Amino acid sequence: MSLLVFGHKSPDTDSVCSAISLAYLKNKLGMEAKAYALEEPRKEAQFVLNYFNVAKPEILKAGELKGKDVVLVDHNEIAQTADEIGEANLVEIIDHHKIGGLSTDLPISLRIMPVGCTCTIVYSLFKENNVEIPYEIAGLLISAILSDTLIFKSPTTTKLDKEAVYALAKIAKVDYEKYGMEMFKAGTSLEGFSIDEIVNMDFKEFDMSGNRVGIGQVMTLDIDAVLSKKDEFLAYINGTEFDMLVLAITDIINEGSYLIYKGEDKIISDAFSVGACQGVFAQGIVSRKKQLVPKLTDAVKNI
Amino acid sequence: MSLLVFGHKSPDTDSVCSAISLAYLKNKLGMEAKAYALEEPRKEAQFVLNYFNVAKPEILKAGELKGKDVVLVDHNEIAQTADEIGEANLVEIIDHHKIGGLSTDLPISLRIMPVGCTCTIVYSLFKENNVEIPYEIAGLLISAILSDTLIFKSPTTTKLDKEAVYALAKIAKVDYEKYGMEMFKAGTSLEGFSIDEIVNMDFKEFDMSGNRVGIGQVMTLDIDAVLSKKDEFLAYINGTEFDMLVLAITDIINEGSYLIYKGEDKIISDAFSVGACQGVFAQGIVSRKKQLVPKLTDAVKNI
Repeated sequence: MSLLVFGHKSPDTDSVCSAISLAYLKNKLGMEAKAYALEEPRKEAQFVLNYFNVAKPEILKAGELKGKDVVLVDHNEIAQTADEIGEANLVEIIDHHKIGGLSTDLPISLRIMPVGCTCTIVYSLFKENNVEIPYEIAGLLISAILSDTLIFKSPTTTKLDKEAVYALAKIAKVDYEKYGMEMFKAGTSLEGFSIDEIVNMDFKEFDMSGNRVGIGQVMTLDIDAVLSKKDEFLAYINGTEFDMLVLAITDIINEGSYLIYKGEDKIISDAFSVGACQGVFAQGIVSRKKQLVPKLTDAVKNI
Repeated sequence: MSLLVFGHKSPDTDSVCSAISLAYLKNKLGMEAKAYALEEPRKEAQFVLNYFNVAKPEILKAGELKGKDVVLVDHNEIAQTADEIGEANLVEIIDHHKIGGLSTDLPISLRIMPVGCTCTIVYSLFKENNVEIPYEIAGLLISAILSDTLIFKSPTTTKLDKEAVYALAKIAKVDYEKYGMEMFKAGTSLEGFSIDEIVNMDFKEFDMSGNRVGIGQVMTLDIDAVLSKKDEFLAYINGTEFDMLVLAITDIINEGSYLIYKGEDKIISDAFSVGACQGVFAQGIVSRKKQLVPKLTDAVKNI
């Protein structure tokens, strides 16, 4: 029986690439298998598919799972998988996440490893089964590993992830650092979004010592595109009714955030120990919840 | 840090042999690892250890798990593992059972395959890691696979189990069918038990159409030892106050049960379609719950 292979909802690069690569491997091992996506893949995954000229996986349709043999990649929790998973016959899971209360009626195949990326496990499976990795599959695998490990900057990165990247870079013919940055830039590009949309993309409001404070955060490597429009952002931000508004443009690779804000320079410089000026880079500041909010709250209180 | 490797409570051959073999493999791969047992291994496992001259694993002591890195083999459910598992740091599971509600805080290594025996997976791990399997480890691995698959008679047997046995038989220098039978006989030997103990080893009482019916069942391949004492069993059984008493001596390899009984021959012959006589072999009758009880209930009703 044919296997349906798919990753989690809101498919990222790993979910898309591990599904396609594993289906390819299963085919080579004599099984019928086809990769699907639960939803439209994210922008970065689309860049990767284009770059290596691989067709986008079909989106799984309602009713299509009924009675089918299913392989899950890059997730193992029911909340993250297809709504109709209960109608299907789960036969295998390949993943790198913690186990979230999984239960099965029968024994299934489970391959979970504490590595940075599911595609690192898929790479191991190619090796274990002595199946040659073609150019485009190597491209998908290396892309996912670079994405999940933030080009090895993530603390989840393991020796196995690195070894896989070094080997795959040769087959996919890429300089992995250069290619990784290109992929991140494309994936986090803000092209086509208006000033309004970018500020409000992920926006939250807080009360700090009686002041209305808004904090927007956007993750991108396409920093230049934002900073080149700094005056337009400032005009928009200053036009809002907030007492203070901080837009954090977070650079996940350089691990910090550019801050564009409406408010007193002294609060910003106190909060983040930076010489405050518009478009300042706050090194190490990447989390709104754990850093931006508590530091700003303190600084506002002490002004 | 050193790894503690152990199987489930009431350790059977697979739990003991997979723990020892996996610890050996981890050592060869440069990790510190030691096999333990949660309780005294069952009789069959003890036979296997003696046969291949391998030391019995240490029994895990209370308090010994605290803060230790742990690898579980042959089980994944909390109810089947060490009572103090919550004090330890679970890093890996290798198993062939269904998943029973497993949850972890962090990603761990999980290798579960729908094969007949954990030792088949351990055998695959030796192969994947190109580690040579020495004589005594081959002996432990093949014993567990033969035990769990009932020498391939169990429907859980897979191609991988068989391939492992064929390869391991050469290293362990055994005729796998002959050795398997010898192991089963030793493991199910009733030597040292009295007539009374054997009849009551696993005994249940039922009401069938107003009759008090007792059914004892004992799994053994040491059939001859029982049948040679048929008259003593009959004397004991006939001396009980039951209206009917059936002792089923179940032969798991030949998939049937020898029946020694107090009661009307006609009921036995009706129930199991056999020419009733003492010590009759009822082919295909192996389950008290699903076969002995309903068939006898019907036959008693229709007498």
